[in-house]
Amino acid sequence: MDEDEFALVERLGRRFAPGAARLGPGDLGIGDDAAAVTLPHPGRVVLATDLVVEGVHVDRAVSSPEDIGWKALMVAVSDLAAMGAEVTCVLLSVAGPPGTDVDGLADGVAEAAGAAGCAVVGGDLSSAPILVVSVTAVGSVPDDGAPLLRRSGARPGDMLVVTGPLGASAAGLRLLGGSGAGTGTDDVPPGPAAAHRRPVARLAEGDAARRAGARAAVDVSDGLLVDAVHLAEASGVGLDLRVGPEAVAAGATRDEALGGGEDYELVLATADPAALAEAFARAGLRRPVVIGSCTALAGVYQLDGGEWPEGGWRHRF
Amino acid sequence: MDEDEFALVERLGRRFAPGAARLGPGDLGIGDDAAAVTLPHPGRVVLATDLVVEGVHVDRAVSSPEDIGWKALMVAVSDLAAMGAEVTCVLLSVAGPPGTDVDGLADGVAEAAGAAGCAVVGGDLSSAPILVVSVTAVGSVPDDGAPLLRRSGARPGDMLVVTGPLGASAAGLRLLGGSGAGTGTDDVPPGPAAAHRRPVARLAEGDAARRAGARAAVDVSDGLLVDAVHLAEASGVGLDLRVGPEAVAAGATRDEALGGGEDYELVLATADPAALAEAFARAGLRRPVVIGSCTALAGVYQLDGGEWPEGGWRHRF
Repeated sequence: MDEDEFALVERLGRRFAPGAARLGPGDLGIGDDAAAVTLPHPGRVVLATDLVVEGVHVDRAVSSPEDIGWKALMVAVSDLAAMGAEVTCVLLSVAGPPGTDVDGLADGVAEAAGAAGCAVVGGDLSSAPILVVSVTAVGSVPDDGAPLLRRSGARPGDMLVVTGPLGASAAGLRLLGGSGAGTGTDDVPPGPAAAHRRPVARLAEGDAARRAGARAAVDVSDGLLVDAVHLAEASGVGLDLRVGPEAVAAGATRDEALGGGEDYELVLATADPAALAEAFARAGLRRPVVIGSCTALAGVYQLDGGEWPEGGWRHRF
Repeated sequence: MDEDEFALVERLGRRFAPGAARLGPGDLGIGDDAAAVTLPHPGRVVLATDLVVEGVHVDRAVSSPEDIGWKALMVAVSDLAAMGAEVTCVLLSVAGPPGTDVDGLADGVAEAAGAAGCAVVGGDLSSAPILVVSVTAVGSVPDDGAPLLRRSGARPGDMLVVTGPLGASAAGLRLLGGSGAGTGTDDVPPGPAAAHRRPVARLAEGDAARRAGARAAVDVSDGLLVDAVHLAEASGVGLDLRVGPEAVAAGATRDEALGGGEDYELVLATADPAALAEAFARAGLRRPVVIGSCTALAGVYQLDGGEWPEGGWRHRF
């Protein structure tokens, strides 16, 4: 493809039109200098943004352009899920070299937007030597008295749960041959492959947890051991993690569950795990998995009663 | 610099703290999964996002990290200015190679945010082989009966004005030696150099124009000849442009004024240029410069009564 930016923007506008049908009557989507969107809950706008960089977050040998678009959207939306917020729309920017399959990327973004119930309302395009996708997710939260789920709300004695078993994304990457480690795509079980290529933001879980009085949340993007510490540091609590086999996804190793990251399940702190499980059951969601508790020993992190292993993913500059 | 992502995020959070003082009491800035911000005008959230890519939009030989940060913010905010909207906050993402001066970039972003009156409330960081900066600007518009300035509102007979003379940014790039064309930084006049390195989003002008009943607007990012056509196409009008010397910035050539781009002045269509000039004078703004009119001949674009030259900047994929 060797095509003019403005023609491409016009075509992408048509591609995202079905999602734009979700916008209100006076709203503006793609095609002007800026978008204008009515939020269902006008109190506060909730905002998160994420970068997906080729060779860092995605490997084009295991993820198609559609997969990359899907993932870029879900990763940003997951940050809203981790606050218990709803998502209304996203902005999508793509920088890439000549021949970048922007249409494939856009298809993945549009599919994911459909799954998450949001509209693509704007963005930017640029040439660049490598592929970089930036998605900003924009949402709001019902004014129902239940506060946003911050990282800092956990208290000693709170139980920690995850919204689903962990490690599937890392297992998928391994099985798909990412970083040259794998066996080719033919014998890859669909569960881990999909978990890696098409992660799902846990919007319904975040919303249900917020309404059920959960105290704190974080999404598992960098790995449980890293993200749980983020929550604990923000809350000023210690961690007593007990990660049983029910917290490890099918096909994943325990190390992948602890350190793999990119699962986008939510870690929730709650004083009442039974009430949370009941709320999830009522909402038709999977049963949350208990993975330990918060302690009064701020800064002290234990795994299965022993030392805290190193793990997780950090960018270095 | 070789430093951990999380330590860097924490330091950047402190750096952006003065701007965060602009947030409301229940608002959340940097440090959680998402930000939550109260908008002054809750009707609709106004959103725009822009990429700044090294080697495409900025040349590190002529722009410092601080300049790049400043520009990345202003370019996104300029899209809100072109709607006549206010800006409340921005999200900032930076991908770059080891050694990227993220602190310098952040200083430039913080300075520009101060100048534009907005807060930096979140973002993302990643490693990448080249520098890519993504800024999303978030704002709103007073519910005062005056609609947002769309590109599509111009009508035949409307006059076209610009909020200031054009071409200074292109002249600055030439004089600063961008793309190897220049003479070194010592004899560069400050006006064009600053225009290139530190463009200013015309927020006050956009707001005054909206309140004064301007019908359409676009910001000059790709070059007058390209951006005016965007406005004309969206409005279904023709263009009769008459670009006199008063529309050419000091130090710039006429070609730079017509095709250079990156001036971030606004092109406004108005049925009443005298009322617009009066509103600008009352607001203490520069006098708008008339550059022609809109005609009923949709798709027909004339410059000084003759043919329309080729010009402007388009990315190719």
